[in-house]
Amino acid sequence: MSAGDASERTARTITERRLAKRSAVFGPSVWNEAYELVARYEDVIYFGNGAPAREIHPIERLQAAAVTAWATALDALDYGEVAGYGPLRELIASRMVAQRITADPEHIIVTSGSQQGIDYVARLMLDPGDVVVVEGPTYIGAMQAFDAYEPSYATVQVDDEGMDVPALAAMLDRMETMPKFVYTIPTFQNPTGITMTLARREALLALSKERGFLILEDDPYGEIYFDQKPELALRAIDPDVIYLGTFSKTIAPGIRVGWLVAPPDLIDMLLMLKEAADIHGDRLIMRTVYHAAEGFLDGHVLKARSVYKARRDALIAGLEEFMPPGVTWSHPDGGFFIWVTLPHGFPTDELLQLAAARGVAFLPGAWFYPRGEAVRTSLRLNFSTLPEERIREGVRRLAGAIGEFLAR
Amino acid sequence: MSAGDASERTARTITERRLAKRSAVFGPSVWNEAYELVARYEDVIYFGNGAPAREIHPIERLQAAAVTAWATALDALDYGEVAGYGPLRELIASRMVAQRITADPEHIIVTSGSQQGIDYVARLMLDPGDVVVVEGPTYIGAMQAFDAYEPSYATVQVDDEGMDVPALAAMLDRMETMPKFVYTIPTFQNPTGITMTLARREALLALSKERGFLILEDDPYGEIYFDQKPELALRAIDPDVIYLGTFSKTIAPGIRVGWLVAPPDLIDMLLMLKEAADIHGDRLIMRTVYHAAEGFLDGHVLKARSVYKARRDALIAGLEEFMPPGVTWSHPDGGFFIWVTLPHGFPTDELLQLAAARGVAFLPGAWFYPRGEAVRTSLRLNFSTLPEERIREGVRRLAGAIGEFLAR
Repeated sequence: MSAGDASERTARTITERRLAKRSAVFGPSVWNEAYELVARYEDVIYFGNGAPAREIHPIERLQAAAVTAWATALDALDYGEVAGYGPLRELIASRMVAQRITADPEHIIVTSGSQQGIDYVARLMLDPGDVVVVEGPTYIGAMQAFDAYEPSYATVQVDDEGMDVPALAAMLDRMETMPKFVYTIPTFQNPTGITMTLARREALLALSKERGFLILEDDPYGEIYFDQKPELALRAIDPDVIYLGTFSKTIAPGIRVGWLVAPPDLIDMLLMLKEAADIHGDRLIMRTVYHAAEGFLDGHVLKARSVYKARRDALIAGLEEFMPPGVTWSHPDGGFFIWVTLPHGFPTDELLQLAAARGVAFLPGAWFYPRGEAVRTSLRLNFSTLPEERIREGVRRLAGAIGEFLAR
Repeated sequence: MSAGDASERTARTITERRLAKRSAVFGPSVWNEAYELVARYEDVIYFGNGAPAREIHPIERLQAAAVTAWATALDALDYGEVAGYGPLRELIASRMVAQRITADPEHIIVTSGSQQGIDYVARLMLDPGDVVVVEGPTYIGAMQAFDAYEPSYATVQVDDEGMDVPALAAMLDRMETMPKFVYTIPTFQNPTGITMTLARREALLALSKERGFLILEDDPYGEIYFDQKPELALRAIDPDVIYLGTFSKTIAPGIRVGWLVAPPDLIDMLLMLKEAADIHGDRLIMRTVYHAAEGFLDGHVLKARSVYKARRDALIAGLEEFMPPGVTWSHPDGGFFIWVTLPHGFPTDELLQLAAARGVAFLPGAWFYPRGEAVRTSLRLNFSTLPEERIREGVRRLAGAIGEFLAR
């Protein structure tokens, strides 16, 4: 496998170049592995995306907004505000009110996607060896960002009620030093689609106060609910939570506009950190997103929800129709993903090769765990980017591959 | 002074919050100090900028390019290439040929300004305590970026021939471990405006081979020459140099588009590092810059050179006309800055308060050195952003303030 070769290459280079220790984690991207696999076969139905549906990108609205932004851009071409465009921060603050989050625009920093917010929080908090608690499974990109700061991971499993907070409490009892922070995607979690119950949320917040760790709440999918509004964001209950939001799932990811809401005493340091990292973000895209979102985005999200709900339903229907006995899956009320679990002993990273040859691909569950802690029997299916008939056909192919795999 | 208060605030917060050690450097921004000082008085002529002239921003060209970019944007709204838009990387490669730099577009990464490139190289190379060699004085933002990786600094003074490479060699003889890299702005240096001679460049490259350190060449001003082309870029002589370029000085800084050219064996790690940090940059602005620059930028830079040359001449003429005896200054052949030095014992950080009250502001020299190594008798004057008559009036005011200051 290519990962082994790449590790050797990296190890040699690090020595010769005298690179930083952390460079050991700048290994091959899992995305390349996924793309290469898909490219190897014809007509592969790819369930690996994490993006909104291309066919509903609000392109005309964005084009018009870009013209407006550039027509008034002359003073935006100079260096400017590190925190990001003021009216956009006000719009973000007012849109978060729908999630009952009250935040001063002064405590919001616009970032290059929420990915950059994850990087910034890690940079602010982590010395090498510090403990970060993550959900098992969790967002691949969060671990990539954290890895650069050389943490140790403590993994808390996700069950039907979200992060297993009682298990976290028990784990903390056994730990000598408290983790620096807990990273959680409480709502329509990536990769499971599961939402943390209110009781668990309250228990997690109480634990953070009691044991003195920070909570980093990543909420890319909170607006993508299908029936009723999800539970309150952690940040809506406790303003001491660092909250990450993004337009990547509600507008588009290629523009790279997200945001971070921080407790007031951390804002000045985060601004200085950002100034040191890239001075500030592209000022024109911040204005474009502002003009596109103002008076439009709520309606667009409403439309998007119905598209994604129909696709979620198609995926659930396909799973029910085709999957062999013993295979189980999550039942998300929003977001982009369903988490499918095979009977014990059947690793999905091995299934992936067979499935691709049968014309279907997914992301293997092992990728969503810290190194060495992988549970290998699950896989992530995305439903946001495929039309219903492709979803049905893809699940049919996948079920066939799983049937073959289980019969081996 | 506010810095003292802020340090106390930071120290307290770090303890309570259990922040990373590096957060101690996320202190108050010097820019806020400068802006607050300028805001305190009326009609202050501000020589503190580092940007192109607003009145020559190619706004119409950029507006048209944005329309073109957005008209073809549909597939750029999804996640995309970590390295940046392919045709833009090709354009960058072909434009660098004018500086006799030969680089494969595959070895170029588009960054959020060269600031992000500096951050990435530090992230790739530096463990806490590693030594970074910088020029004294050097670019403030580079030290801000490095600081987050907790290096020690070794400072090599800049004389009329650029970085004092013989002094560097002598310093290396006394050091137990070699620095990880030398950071240099060899051409029209920020803040001195001085250009490293070819002999010094060759000596620096030879030294890097002999002692085994990497060279990080930051070249934001190389295209802004006034008479003849500057010396060859270090990267033009030696492909093992990491080179940073930017459109911030030739187009505009508010759009945040720069690039990094790396040796082939480091590219994969840098791409992974970028993916972990922000996935990739704004895909629309990369397309906009591509469409704006293609067939246009060479002519625009030609025009910009003549604007900046006239302003450099006005600043030199003003210095010659008004400055009291004992004050000296650099004579740059390009770039945006002149470095002015007072007689020994007259610190420009103290002068700044008086000068602002007299209607003129600059950046004090101390800000351009690592902590504890500051030489305080110089100051940086920018000439790119002020029309000639304001430059003349500003120097007249500054000379008056210096006269008062020296007579104290």
